[in-house]
Amino acid sequence: MPQKVRIALDAMGGDVGASVVVPGAAMSLARHPDSEFLLVGKRDLIEAELANHPQLKAVSRVIHTDVAVNMEDKPSQALRRGRKTSSMWLAIDAVKKGEADVVVSAGNTGALMAMARFILHTLEGVDRPAIAAVWPTTRGESVVLDLGATIGGDARHLAALAVMGSAMASVLFNLPRPKVGFLNIGTEEIKGHEEIREAGEMLRAANLPQLEYIGFVEGDGIGKGVADVVVTEGYSGNIALKSAEGTARQITELLRAAIGRSWLSQIGYLFARSAFRELRNKLDPKKSNGGVFLGLRGVVVKSHGGMDAEGFAYAVDVGYETVRYDLLTKINQMLNRAGGGLVPDPSAPEAVS
Amino acid sequence: MPQKVRIALDAMGGDVGASVVVPGAAMSLARHPDSEFLLVGKRDLIEAELANHPQLKAVSRVIHTDVAVNMEDKPSQALRRGRKTSSMWLAIDAVKKGEADVVVSAGNTGALMAMARFILHTLEGVDRPAIAAVWPTTRGESVVLDLGATIGGDARHLAALAVMGSAMASVLFNLPRPKVGFLNIGTEEIKGHEEIREAGEMLRAANLPQLEYIGFVEGDGIGKGVADVVVTEGYSGNIALKSAEGTARQITELLRAAIGRSWLSQIGYLFARSAFRELRNKLDPKKSNGGVFLGLRGVVVKSHGGMDAEGFAYAVDVGYETVRYDLLTKINQMLNRAGGGLVPDPSAPEAVS
Repeated sequence: MPQKVRIALDAMGGDVGASVVVPGAAMSLARHPDSEFLLVGKRDLIEAELANHPQLKAVSRVIHTDVAVNMEDKPSQALRRGRKTSSMWLAIDAVKKGEADVVVSAGNTGALMAMARFILHTLEGVDRPAIAAVWPTTRGESVVLDLGATIGGDARHLAALAVMGSAMASVLFNLPRPKVGFLNIGTEEIKGHEEIREAGEMLRAANLPQLEYIGFVEGDGIGKGVADVVVTEGYSGNIALKSAEGTARQITELLRAAIGRSWLSQIGYLFARSAFRELRNKLDPKKSNGGVFLGLRGVVVKSHGGMDAEGFAYAVDVGYETVRYDLLTKINQMLNRAGGGLVPDPSAPEAVS
Repeated sequence: MPQKVRIALDAMGGDVGASVVVPGAAMSLARHPDSEFLLVGKRDLIEAELANHPQLKAVSRVIHTDVAVNMEDKPSQALRRGRKTSSMWLAIDAVKKGEADVVVSAGNTGALMAMARFILHTLEGVDRPAIAAVWPTTRGESVVLDLGATIGGDARHLAALAVMGSAMASVLFNLPRPKVGFLNIGTEEIKGHEEIREAGEMLRAANLPQLEYIGFVEGDGIGKGVADVVVTEGYSGNIALKSAEGTARQITELLRAAIGRSWLSQIGYLFARSAFRELRNKLDPKKSNGGVFLGLRGVVVKSHGGMDAEGFAYAVDVGYETVRYDLLTKINQMLNRAGGGLVPDPSAPEAVS
C-alpha cells in the first residue's frame, strides 16, 4: 500500500470543532500511520491544537476559513450562506478536486448531505443518496441503511441501497459475500410495499457474487444480527434507528435509577462492575460513530455532533477504511457489472407494453 | 355501574389455548368482579379448566366448537376454513350479535384482523383499521398505533388514527386530554410524507377538546414518553415496535451473558437483584400485553400468542376497560363531533378547483 490515505476534516463541524477534531485525528493517525490530513477551519484554533500533536502536524495541511455552517441551519440556508466559503463546503470540495480521498464532518447532517450532493453529484445508476451506519448486534455488527437521507423509493433504489450497503459491509467487516436483507413487517397478504418484494426479486435474479440476498428481516432481526446488511428507505430506517437508540437509553436509565434506590444494589453494582463495563463497551455509541453517505462520487463520513475526540476518531477510522479498501470502486463494479441488469440504465428505452 | 362487562374469549387461540385462556380469565375476573365470559372452544377442555375456577365458572357460558384457526394460516385461508365454525369467528360474531361487548383472542393476528373486519366492518369515517398497544416509557405508558394493520394512508387516515388512539389513552390512562404526536423523522426540507404534515394541520385546525396535538415525535421520543399517543401508519409503527423490542431483548441478553462470565459479577447480581427485578417489572411484556384493534364496530383485543395466564389476564383487563369506559362511544363522538370536519365524509362532493 504505497499510497497515503488523504482525509479532509471539517474542523468547524460539531458542537465543539477543532478541539475535538484535531485530537480525534491524532488518535486515528496513531492507528493508521499512512494517513494524511487536510484540516479546514480557523487557522489559529487548528494550529493551537496541532501544537499538542506533532505527529499529526507533520502530516497535516491547514486550509483557513472562518465561515462555519451552524448546527441549526436548514440545508437551503447552509447552501446559500456557506457556499464556497464554509469549512464544510471546502472540505467536501477537496474530495471533488482530488486533493483528498474522503471527507469527515461532525456538522449539521442535512447541510452536509445537501452540500455533498451539490458538489459531488450521485453515482451513475444512483438517483438519490443514503446514509449507512454500523449497528451493534448480538452477533457482532451490521450495516443498516438508509438512516434518513431519502424518503421512499422504488425497487431500483432499494436494490442500489443493497449493493452499496453490502460493499460497505465487505469493506468494514472484511466479508467476501455479506448477507443482505430488506427490512419488512411480518404480516402476510398486506397491500403496499410491492417495491420491497420487487427489489428482492431483482437481487435474487442478479445473483451477485458480492452479496447473498437472504430475504426479509423484521425490526427485531436487526439487533439479532440475522443479516450483515439491512436495507430500507430512509423514513423507516430513521424510525428503526431512533426507536432502538431510545430504548437502549431508556433501559440504561431505568437500571441506573433502580440501582441507585438501594444501597444493597449499589454494592452489587460494585461487584458486577466488569459486566456493566462490558455491556457499555459493546453498546458504546462512540464505536459505531461514523455514518457513511453512499451513492455519491466521493465518500463523506458524518460523525455525531456531540462526540468527543475518541468518538470522532472512530469516524475518521471509518473514513480511512472506505478509502484503503476501495469502497467506491467496489460499489461501481457491482452497480455496473458486465452483463448486469440489476440497476438498469434509466435512460434506456422502455419496452412497449 | 349496573351493567356487566361481557367478554368473549377465543379459547383455542394462542400457543396453548384453554389452559392459558381460562386461568387468565379467572385472574382478570378477580380484579373486575363485574365481568361475564363467553368461552368459545372445545367444551371438554374448557370445562376441565373451569373446574379449577368455580368463581369464573359461575359467570361463564361455553360455546362449543372444535375448529381452530392455526397460528400459521394466512388470513385468506383462515377466512375460508374457519368461517362460521372456528372459535375465533364465533367469538368475534358474539360481539356482532350483541352477546358480548368485546372479544379477546391470542390467535393468529392476520386471521383475527381479517375476520374482525369481515364480521364487524369499519366505523363510519374510518376506511381501514389499526392495531394500538401500550408502550412502556420512562415517564409511564403511552399508546402507540398503528403497529401493523394498515400500510400507508393519507392525512385523513392518520387523523382518524390520532382520534382513536387518544380515545384509547383517555380510557386506559384516565386522561381527559391526551397529548398526541405524529411519528416523523428530524430531517428538514425532505420530500415525501406530506400526509403527516397535512394530518397535523387537520388536528390543529380541529382543536378537539379531547386531545392536545403536540406535533411531531421522533423515534427516540416514544420511549421518553413525550406524547401520550404516538401515531404513524402500520409499516413504520411495526418497525418501531420490533426495533425497540429487539433492542430490549439484546441488552438483556448481553447483560446476562456479561454477568455470567465472572463470579464477582454473579455475586454482584445477587446484591443488586431488587434493581434487576424492578427493571424487569417495568419492562415486563406481559403488562403491556393486549393490542387493541381500532376502527371497527366492536372492540377486538389481541393477546400475544406466547403469553402465559398472567399475561393473557392483562389482555382481558384491557378488553374490560375498553368496555367499562366506553371506548367505542368516545371514538364515535370524536369522529363525528358536531360541526366537525376533522374527518370529512368521503362521499361528500368535492369542491370544483
